[in-house]
Parts: sequence; structure tokens; C-alpha cells
Amino acid sequence: MSNGDIFVGEVIGTAILILFGAGVCAAVTLRHSKARASGWIVIAFGWGFGVLAGAYTAAPLSGGQLNPAVTIGIAVDTGTWGKVWVYLLGEIVGAMLGAVLAYLVYLAQFQANVREEGTGEDAGEEPLPTLGVFSTIPEIRNPVANLVTEIIATMALVLPILAFGQTKGLGESGTTVLVVSLLVVGIGLSLGGPTGYAINPARDLGPRIVHSFLPIPNKGTSDWGYAWIPVVGPLIGGVLAGLVHHAAF
Amino acid sequence: MSNGDIFVGEVIGTAILILFGAGVCAAVTLRHSKARASGWIVIAFGWGFGVLAGAYTAAPLSGGQLNPAVTIGIAVDTGTWGKVWVYLLGEIVGAMLGAVLAYLVYLAQFQANVREEGTGEDAGEEPLPTLGVFSTIPEIRNPVANLVTEIIATMALVLPILAFGQTKGLGESGTTVLVVSLLVVGIGLSLGGPTGYAINPARDLGPRIVHSFLPIPNKGTSDWGYAWIPVVGPLIGGVLAGLVHHAAF
Amino acid sequence: MSNGDIFVGEVIGTAILILFGAGVCAAVTLRHSKARASGWIVIAFGWGFGVLAGAYTAAPLSGGQLNPAVTIGIAVDTGTWGKVWVYLLGEIVGAMLGAVLAYLVYLAQFQANVREEGTGEDAGEEPLPTLGVFSTIPEIRNPVANLVTEIIATMALVLPILAFGQTKGLGESGTTVLVVSLLVVGIGLSLGGPTGYAINPARDLGPRIVHSFLPIPNKGTSDWGYAWIPVVGPLIGGVLAGLVHHAAF
Amino acid sequence: MSNGDIFVGEVIGTAILILFGAGVCAAVTLRHSKARASGWIVIAFGWGFGVLAGAYTAAPLSGGQLNPAVTIGIAVDTGTWGKVWVYLLGEIVGAMLGAVLAYLVYLAQFQANVREEGTGEDAGEEPLPTLGVFSTIPEIRNPVANLVTEIIATMALVLPILAFGQTKGLGESGTTVLVVSLLVVGIGLSLGGPTGYAINPARDLGPRIVHSFLPIPNKGTSDWGYAWIPVVGPLIGGVLAGLVHHAAF
Repeated sequence: MSNGDIFVGEVIGTAILILFGAGVCAAVTLRHSKARASGWIVIAFGWGFGVLAGAYTAAPLSGGQLNPAVTIGIAVDTGTWGKVWVYLLGEIVGAMLGAVLAYLVYLAQFQANVREEGTGEDAGEEPLPTLGVFSTIPEIRNPVANLVTEIIATMALVLPILAFGQTKGLGESGTTVLVVSLLVVGIGLSLGGPTGYAINPARDLGPRIVHSFLPIPNKGTSDWGYAWIPVVGPLIGGVLAGLVHHAAF
Repeated sequence: MSNGDIFVGEVIGTAILILFGAGVCAAVTLRHSKARASGWIVIAFGWGFGVLAGAYTAAPLSGGQLNPAVTIGIAVDTGTWGKVWVYLLGEIVGAMLGAVLAYLVYLAQFQANVREEGTGEDAGEEPLPTLGVFSTIPEIRNPVANLVTEIIATMALVLPILAFGQTKGLGESGTTVLVVSLLVVGIGLSLGGPTGYAINPARDLGPRIVHSFLPIPNKGTSDWGYAWIPVVGPLIGGVLAGLVHHAAF
Repeated sequence: MSNGDIFVGEVIGTAILILFGAGVCAAVTLRHSKARASGWIVIAFGWGFGVLAGAYTAAPLSGGQLNPAVTIGIAVDTGTWGKVWVYLLGEIVGAMLGAVLAYLVYLAQFQANVREEGTGEDAGEEPLPTLGVFSTIPEIRNPVANLVTEIIATMALVLPILAFGQTKGLGESGTTVLVVSLLVVGIGLSLGGPTGYAINPARDLGPRIVHSFLPIPNKGTSDWGYAWIPVVGPLIGGVLAGLVHHAAF
Repeated sequence: MSNGDIFVGEVIGTAILILFGAGVCAAVTLRHSKARASGWIVIAFGWGFGVLAGAYTAAPLSGGQLNPAVTIGIAVDTGTWGKVWVYLLGEIVGAMLGAVLAYLVYLAQFQANVREEGTGEDAGEEPLPTLGVFSTIPEIRNPVANLVTEIIATMALVLPILAFGQTKGLGESGTTVLVVSLLVVGIGLSLGGPTGYAINPARDLGPRIVHSFLPIPNKGTSDWGYAWIPVVGPLIGGVLAGLVHHAAF
């Protein structure tokens, strides 16, 4: 695969992933969305099938890694680092692009993020903070615990992905990405409760950058004080998964 | 594939798709349905597995496109336009047939769409508008924003579908349609909040025509003022997806 | 396949199907179940994955039809009627066995179906009718409409199943039953609202027979007046699907 | 497969299974989890996709059994007992490790399990019992009924798994584990209502041991009086499934 194909593939694939992921967070949280308050099952399947959409699309060009923690985990496991920078660059650019696309899909909802007018059931409600559509926010702010959560949850993503490559038949039947997408659904359902499962530095950092400059009414803080945890935690988790896989398999 | 097979395949497949899709909207919204108020997750899986049912059924005859935006996207990508009119004709006829079938499945519920009698929990409730069972209605009426939503959401459908064709093994294992159906679940969950995700001109226009002549009590408006957006938006999205795929892959 | 293998396969497979299906109805409706009131999405996936469990288990012995409407539909389509009686016999016996197994799984819940004692949130509640765990009950009692619902919903099951057999790769990859199970999830979500989607004469009749003789406290009526509709409707639907498939494909 | 590979595979795989399973129980029940009260559908898919994650990861090393009831069922069916002790040892060690990992993921939530301070909606709430995150608790305490539930539910797991091995193409396409994971989702939805579906002695005993020594504030009882049922029931179910499969297939 050429550097150009890898870059384009990761940009398109990660953009689609974040379009779905930020999209489902918007769908569930913003006012005037048909899916408002439809619950955690919607969040988890929305992100998982975002992986399905993005990774299958990127696969013919770049393999569809879409996640620096996966890229680093593969590099640690295989010892091949030459293309890593291209993947990382594509992933972060793609994540930013995807966040802009999700913003455009929910443009009218974001523009309506003002004190609720009219006589509907939301009448009089104040504007909502909007960062949760773009990036993760912990339920309990505790750097050590949040970091541990992200490290373990990312290991639970990357170690199975490394093992899928050894599963007889999965690649041949073209269903590896399908299985990865369901894995991501499972991580969301099971391990997303404390921090909202970044498990991907690009997924959190790219949209946070976009949030900080988008002209959203009453958008609230971009919370840069927390931003290092969903970058560092997943990177540590990816490295550890690569080491465990290299040692055990 | 002969023109006759394509037409029959698209009619049957699109009819099944709309039977499931309009069916799940009826299931969740109509009174005296066991699934009433069962939420967005039900809507999204109902439509997605409608794709599974319809596209697998149509596949041996027509390939199972079921959507003018997909048909146009493939034509733009491949430069092959000869059969497009047969697909489009089958899709719109099938969508109308499917809407009639869904109406028949929920016949008793539609006939009961009058001021609620009796002493149950719905006693005294007024008739419901019924267009939402058939066609999409935006949460916030804003032509530019609604159009942008439909364009991006349709690109998120068609671009992955075009890429699936390049995925090693997916066609051979017969699971392409399965993956498309989960993609459609994901689009519904993530991108359906603002407009109800038409992403398919036939899916919206066919049932709207049927709604305008069906004898449903108190059926309310067919909202023809909005009808061009879920036709034009998905067609633009399909063209753009075809162009992007042709350029990037 | 020998008659003995077919019979044993259909008995075991249909028993597993009904164990899951009656089980999920018990799970969602009975008091003192952890899944009580967990909604339509649970019902639909429970039945669908009951098909997955039962049909994969039966497949090596009998092909795993588990449903007289499917058996008749295949016979109409292929013109092969010799083994039909063995399938039907196995299906009805299996459905009865499965209903007994589901009753045993929820034995303590059924035994507690008396006026609710104690100080919990259900205190003072009267016993519940129990037929809904075993067989279908229409929301609106209208024989013509109920029959039409069951006919169309069964066609939406059998016609895709007949088409799956023509899908390149699906059989070879062993995923046909998986796809059928998701189809059944979709039918439940989309078409189950009016009558509870019997779409299978054995699924409704077998458990109804069992309900009529099981010693459940305060079990209520077995509603034999309705029993012919979920038998006749699905049989008509299966025949029509077989005719359509034979003509169109 | 060497004893070392089997042991390592079962430890890693079962640890991942329990990480997801205990994780999703924590996600749904603990305060300050984003998934709190998100319902039974979340529980069932969380456990199911824990099987997907754990069994695919373990498969290249040990085949990914992760459950003594499955191990015993296979041994009864095939008559091969030589490696059983290695599997059992790995499964129980892995289950304990997974429970510790889930505890670490939800560390801040467990540490906050005290009388709720502040002015939020939970203000003044007492600490919650925590055993439900780790091990199963019956809704109605009735040893015979609970045992019957676990026996039948485990047969509904192990018998299909034994049949999957005979399904043409499933192994070759690498999708066996995917199908098993959906089977486990179905068992949870349908048969989990009375006892919380242990269906795996290691899944219940390992986390219970861990619960008894972890320093969780206000953790409540480890309920050792019930502990034998989710061990003995699943073992009986596994043996019966092995016998039925050996006789019928």
C-alpha cells in the first residue's frame, strides 16, 4: 500500500467512524432529535456500526485501522514502524473531518441550542453543553482511575483485534471488520460507563479540536484539562496489548 | 440480468424493504400495537433488517439495489447507465407496493385511528397524524440543513456499499447484504435524528404517494411541500459518493 | 436424511426455538423476572436468536425448518411432498416440548402467580393472565385483519428464506441460519405489533395445547376461539410465498 | 495444543469474558455510570459480545471454551478427558483475573459506593449491594427451581455449541464464535430472568471468590449459601447436553 492510499483510506475511514460516533451522541443528547434519550444501547451500536462503515470503506486502501492505539499495537506486535506516521496523520485528520460532518448533519439542532422557546415539553430549558457530542467526559473525575479505565478498555479492543488476524477463515470470509464492530459494541456496553470509552486517541482529540473552533451557540467548555487522558490511556493500552500478544501468541 | 428480472427483483425487494420499514414505524407509533413507544433502537433495527430481507430476496434477480441513490451512485462510479431506468422504475413501484402491504398489516390499527373510546390508558386521545408511518418528517423544518443532512447520510450509505464490492471475501461468503443491513442500522441510529433518514428517494416518495390516496381515517397531511428534499438530497448524496469512490479507490 | 433423523432434528430444534421464544415472553412479562418490562427489542431478539439456536442445532439432522409454514412453502416451491408429514409431526411435538421446558425454567415465577404478598412495589397486585407467554393474542380482535397480518408477515418470512437458498456463498459459509435469525428479529420488530407474529402454526398451537393442561396457578383462558388464525394464516402465507418464489425466480 | 497454550488461552479468554460480563453488570447497576439503568438488552449483549471478544482471542491458543460446562460437555460427547483439568484450571483463574479487571475499570464507581453526598438526583441514597456485579443472584430463592433453570439454560448453550461443529462452512468461514456469541445473547434475553443465567461455573465462582476479598466499601454479602447452584446446575446441564448430542447426532 502506498503512503497516499494509506493516508486517503485512513482519512475517509476515520471520518466515517467519527461521523457515526459523534452523530449518535448528537442523536441521543440534542433537543429536536428523533432519537433523543434513546439510551446506552443506541450509543454503543451507533459507535460499533461506525467502525463497520468506516473500516470496511478504508480496508481496500489502508486496511482500516482508524485508531492510533490499534496502529501502535500492531507496530509493537510486529516490529514494523515505517508507515506508522502516515496512519496517525490520516487518523487525526479524518477524525477532525468526521466531527465537522457530524456537526453539519445536526446543524439545525446545534443552531437551536439556545433557551428553548415555545410551549413544547422543553419550553424554558437552558442551552445544553455540547462537548459530549464530540469528546469523552468522565462521570467521576479521577485521573488515575480514568487512566486505568481507558488502558484496560483499550487492551480489550486491541488484543482481540490482534488475535482476529490468526483466526482461521475470518479474513477469507471478509467478516473480520464485522466482528471488530461487534467487539466495539461490546466494549461500549460493558466498559464505557466510567469515561465514555475513548479507546482511540484520534476519536477524542480530533473532535475536541474541532469543538474548540466551531461556532456552536452556547457550546460550553472544550475541557482541555482532561484531554490528555483519552490520548495517553489508549496509547498505553495499545502498547500493552501489543506486548501481551507478542509474548503469548 | 434481463430487464424483466431486474424489474421483478427490484419490485419484490423494495416492497419487502418498505413493508418492514413502514411496518416498524407503525409498530412504534400506532395505538394498539404491541411495540408502541419501544424506541429508536427498534426503528433502526427494523429498517436495517428490512434491507436484509429485501436485498437478499432481490439479489438473485437484480442484485438488490432497492434505492435510486445506490443505483445512481453505482452508475456514476462505473459509468454504466443502460439499465438505470429499469432499476428506478422497479424501486418506485416496489416502494408503493410495500407501503400498501404495511398498511394492510396494520389495517385494524389504522381503522382505530379515531378519538379513543373506552376506559383504557389512551381513553379520550385524539386521532394521530399518520404520515410518519409512510414518509419522513424533519424535526426542525430548515430546507438547507435538512438537505445537508440527507446528502451526508446518503453518502455514508453509498460510499461504504461501493467499497464492500472491493472487500476480499465478502461477496464469496454471501454476507455483503448482512453487512449492508447493519450499516443501515448504524445510519439510522447515528444520522437519523434530524430528518428521519430517508437516504432513499423511493423509500420516501413511494409511500408518500400511497399515503395521499389510502382511505385512512383522520390521516392528516401528506406534506408535499417537504417531499422534494428526501428525493433530491439522497440523489445528490449518491452522485457525490460515486464521484468520491471513483476518484479515491 | 432418514425419517428418524428428520423427526429428531425437528423435535430438538423446535423445542429449542420455543424454549427461547416462550422464555423471552416469560422474561419480559412475569413478575420476579430480571428482564421484566424490558421491552419489544428484547422480545424480538429473543425469538430471533431462538431461531439461531434451534435451527443450527437441527440443521445437521433435518435442515432445521422448525415451522410448518416453511415446510409447506418449500414443498409448494419444489413440488416435493414426501417428507412433509415427518417435518410437521416433529415441529408440533417439538413446540410442545419447548413450551414445557420454558415453563420449567420459569417454574418459580409461575408458582408465584398469585395475589402479590409483601411490601415490594408489586404488593397487592392480582395474578396475571399467562397465555401470552405461550401463544399469541391480537391487540385488536378482528379475524379478517388478524388473518391478513399473519399471511403477509409469514410471506415476509418464507419468501426470503426461499431466496437465501439461491444466494451465492451463504450456504458455503454456514451463515444462512444466522441471516434467517436476523430476518426473524426484523419481522418481530416490524410486523409483530398487531398480532404478536405467530408466523408459525406449531409455534402457536403447540404451546397453546401445553398451556391448556399445565397446572399454572390462575393461568386464565387458553383462548381457543382465536387459535385457528395463527394456524391458518401462516399456512396460507407459506403457500403464497412458495407460489411467488416458484413463479418469479 | 500444548498444556501451556491451553492454559494461557483459557486464562486470557475467560478474563476477557468476565471483564465484559462483570463490566456490563457494573455499567448498568452502579451509580455514576453512563449506562446506569439502561436495561436487560444491554446486559445480554454485553455478556454475548464478551464471549465474542474472549473466545476469538483464546481460539488460536486453546479453542476458546471459557466455560467448564462446555469443557465437560465436549468431553462427555467425545470421550476425551485428558486435557480437561488444564481447561478447568485456566477457566477459573481467568474468571478471577477478569473480575479484578472489571473492578479496576469501575474503581471510582466502587469507591463512591457510600451514602450519596451532594444535591444530585441520587442525593441521600444508601450504598448499594455489589455482589450482583460479580455473581448471580436468583430473583426467587428456590433451590430446586433455580437448579432446574440453570440446567436447562446450560443445555441450551452447550447442545447448540456441539452442533455448530457439524455445521458445514461455519468453521471454515471463521464465524463459529460470532454465532456462539449471539446464542449467548439469546440465552440471556430468554432464560436469564429467574437466576441471572450463570450457565458457567467459572463465571460465577471465580468472581464470587474475588468479591469476597476485594476491598469494596459497603460491599455486602458474597452469598456463599447460593454459590453451589450456579456451579452444580451448569455442570449437570453440560453433561446432559453431551449425552443428548452423543445419542442423537
